[in-house]
Amino acid sequence: MNRKMVFHICGQMLLIEAALMVLPLITALIYGESCALAILATIGIAIVLGAAIMLASRPDDTVIYSREGFVITALTWVEFSAVGALPFVLAGEIPSYIDAFFETVSGFTTTGASILRNVEVMSKGLLFWRSFTHWVGGMGILVLVMAVLPMTTDRSIHIMRAEMPGPIIGKLVPRVRQTAKILYIIYIALTLVEIILLLCGGMNLFEASVHAFGTAGTGGFGVKSDSITSYSPFIQWVMTAFMMIFAVNFNLYYLILIKRFKAAFSSDELWAYLGIVVTSVLLVSVNIAPLYATVEETVRKAAFQVLSIISTSGFATADFNLWPQFSKSILFALMLLGGCAGSTGGGLKVSRAIMLFKSGRRELKKMLHPRSVSAVRFEGKTVDDKTISSVGVYFAFFAAIQLLAFILISFEPFDFETKITSVVACFNNVGPGLGAVGPSGSYADYSAFSKLVLSVAMLFGRLEIYPVIFLLSPSVWFKKR
Amino acid sequence: MNRKMVFHICGQMLLIEAALMVLPLITALIYGESCALAILATIGIAIVLGAAIMLASRPDDTVIYSREGFVITALTWVEFSAVGALPFVLAGEIPSYIDAFFETVSGFTTTGASILRNVEVMSKGLLFWRSFTHWVGGMGILVLVMAVLPMTTDRSIHIMRAEMPGPIIGKLVPRVRQTAKILYIIYIALTLVEIILLLCGGMNLFEASVHAFGTAGTGGFGVKSDSITSYSPFIQWVMTAFMMIFAVNFNLYYLILIKRFKAAFSSDELWAYLGIVVTSVLLVSVNIAPLYATVEETVRKAAFQVLSIISTSGFATADFNLWPQFSKSILFALMLLGGCAGSTGGGLKVSRAIMLFKSGRRELKKMLHPRSVSAVRFEGKTVDDKTISSVGVYFAFFAAIQLLAFILISFEPFDFETKITSVVACFNNVGPGLGAVGPSGSYADYSAFSKLVLSVAMLFGRLEIYPVIFLLSPSVWFKKR
Repeated sequence: MNRKMVFHICGQMLLIEAALMVLPLITALIYGESCALAILATIGIAIVLGAAIMLASRPDDTVIYSREGFVITALTWVEFSAVGALPFVLAGEIPSYIDAFFETVSGFTTTGASILRNVEVMSKGLLFWRSFTHWVGGMGILVLVMAVLPMTTDRSIHIMRAEMPGPIIGKLVPRVRQTAKILYIIYIALTLVEIILLLCGGMNLFEASVHAFGTAGTGGFGVKSDSITSYSPFIQWVMTAFMMIFAVNFNLYYLILIKRFKAAFSSDELWAYLGIVVTSVLLVSVNIAPLYATVEETVRKAAFQVLSIISTSGFATADFNLWPQFSKSILFALMLLGGCAGSTGGGLKVSRAIMLFKSGRRELKKMLHPRSVSAVRFEGKTVDDKTISSVGVYFAFFAAIQLLAFILISFEPFDFETKITSVVACFNNVGPGLGAVGPSGSYADYSAFSKLVLSVAMLFGRLEIYPVIFLLSPSVWFKKR
Repeated sequence: MNRKMVFHICGQMLLIEAALMVLPLITALIYGESCALAILATIGIAIVLGAAIMLASRPDDTVIYSREGFVITALTWVEFSAVGALPFVLAGEIPSYIDAFFETVSGFTTTGASILRNVEVMSKGLLFWRSFTHWVGGMGILVLVMAVLPMTTDRSIHIMRAEMPGPIIGKLVPRVRQTAKILYIIYIALTLVEIILLLCGGMNLFEASVHAFGTAGTGGFGVKSDSITSYSPFIQWVMTAFMMIFAVNFNLYYLILIKRFKAAFSSDELWAYLGIVVTSVLLVSVNIAPLYATVEETVRKAAFQVLSIISTSGFATADFNLWPQFSKSILFALMLLGGCAGSTGGGLKVSRAIMLFKSGRRELKKMLHPRSVSAVRFEGKTVDDKTISSVGVYFAFFAAIQLLAFILISFEPFDFETKITSVVACFNNVGPGLGAVGPSGSYADYSAFSKLVLSVAMLFGRLEIYPVIFLLSPSVWFKKR
């Protein structure tokens, strides 16, 4: 492996993180908070560390291949979390480093699982940073860099492929950098629209930004212990709509931008996603109707929670842990499913579920007519057997890693429901689970070991498994090409 | 579909069931129990019904294809359970028909999940029938018929393929009937050896037969509420060994019979299975050591429970629901895994897990070297992409059906652990789960609807999904060829 180039880029990335921290620094200064010092110190540490790594690893050869792409991606996410956790510790607001690391991994991976019991006591600067990590992690740390800076390497497609979610990574336009730029322009525009709408709903700029970041990245960190419950119905509906929007494949928005409406609205994944959303909202509404006074309130609660979970955001306007078990089971299934490929949502992804479903139908057909030939079609194209078997294998990894994480945290004194949904909510980047980690609970009581396991699970989920496996494989690190 | 031929064979099968009931009838007569009348009445009903169906559906054409094979298999299992439940109801020992149906499906599918709270009050004749269903269902109802009777059709491979578990169905010898015969000879011989050993351990003939049937079919019905706990260590070790033996692919025993030892002992699946067993026993032993007095007792408890679960038998010598959560999690994972293909065990099967694991390794390799060509090898042969994608699709069905069953029974007032392990224990034909359906619990408190859902889940699991889907598809029934 071209290790020098890997470290060189990772050093570079720390400088980017330092730059990203200027926004929370400004917030802290505006509010005159002492956490500004902690942020400033971290910026200094990131610059020194990043520069040192860059100087120590001047590459002779800037060419990278897929192996470097995977490792750079995984390593960047780990170092971003490791350094991004420092302000919380230095400011004394999260005294334990492992807790702060958990919280920051949860931020960048857009999980939104929190170890904070009382979020209201946190300073605004750090709350801003916490939610801003959602926004940065949502569309991708490295994709962001590709969009704004000329990369040291011209093989950045390997990095993009490693960081973008979904079974088939398409470049929108032939040049990677251009694709990254378009994605970020759409992302920024949608975030701004949401901020404006939230301001209209009566939030101040700080609250509006923080919640828009959380929605855009499908993260779920808020600024109140009851999440979104005490905000107005208007704000709840706005966030419901944007959670829906941010879990849709961004390719669609690009197609709309270039006026290829027919292509955009004939997406199999879009309609399957909307169908699942509508069905789930209906089922949950009927099931929870006895709990709420009006039809509007019932549907609003159902729609918010369903979209929060399927988009893997994790905001809440109701303690769904107290809902009837049928609704909880539906939400549990949606946690595993997640949003569309090429969105900021986590989970298995709707497109993979469709491909598995269609392959299943074909399998049944082949059993009845062994000599028949039939293809699986998705988004107007034939899916080859290689892709189908890749999706099947991905699904097996998906299940095996969650089962393994469940076994690893099974020493904990929580009940089965809490532990299994902790793993599912972390791996699929949802955030809140059921039981003790429900919307009104927290991950605070887990041991340091389990917090580490769950942090790794979040990285596995957000980076779609493979980069983390490669990061952990000595054979990848030490093999000469 | 050749519906006449389907019904004709299903009618025939009821006559077979009547013949099978002669054994429990004799048992009841020996013990002078009144349930003999109920069994006799059921034999009469089965003969009349079977003959009527056969007469009403005289086929013009005896050729069947895979679609008929699947439907015949699924339908036979349903009618065997529907009629096999009658003696329990007629004798008044299980007053509710739905309970008796659940118990009988559980018997034939070798699940061993029970609605009985107190098994000691049952008559010996019905206890014998209950365990005998395990033995019949273990190797396969239709495979049994193929072994002993000339089938009306010469295309019986389609039936065998539908009934035998595992991803790749191999005939041991070119003729299906011969294969079925060999399998049953091995099955009978091993059962007899176990009966003799249990007799040596001090059981009477009734107890020895019932427990050997339960072990051979990897079922799990016993005659005591505490399952095997109060029997001697010798008996527990004998059953441990035979649970291990019956979860191994029967092809291996055939290879040993024809003295191809090298082929038998170079099986990938065998070594993976043994490796998983040894590792699990070790981990559980260390975890539960503080609970037991001696090393022998600890290892005996660990080995018995691990083999009972991985073989999907479901006997118990300890209430593993009270074990530390780490051991429970391992047992939970083993429930999903199950035994080897071509054995009487349920679950996903070790061979499928191996293929998914090896495909995963290949997938990782392909990502680093996109142009490399590497094959997945299993049991000394290259596995083609079609088989791999079939295994992936099977795994997706496996997960989806269990998730769906979980949602369907989520109205029940049990906790998450009870409900999820109920589905897993039924679908994978294990029997006892955790929580309220643990070894000392029962399925009695589920509603009739949920008992039906769980019964269907057992059939899905035992018949490996596809036959049941075809049985439930109108398009299969009404399509003309």
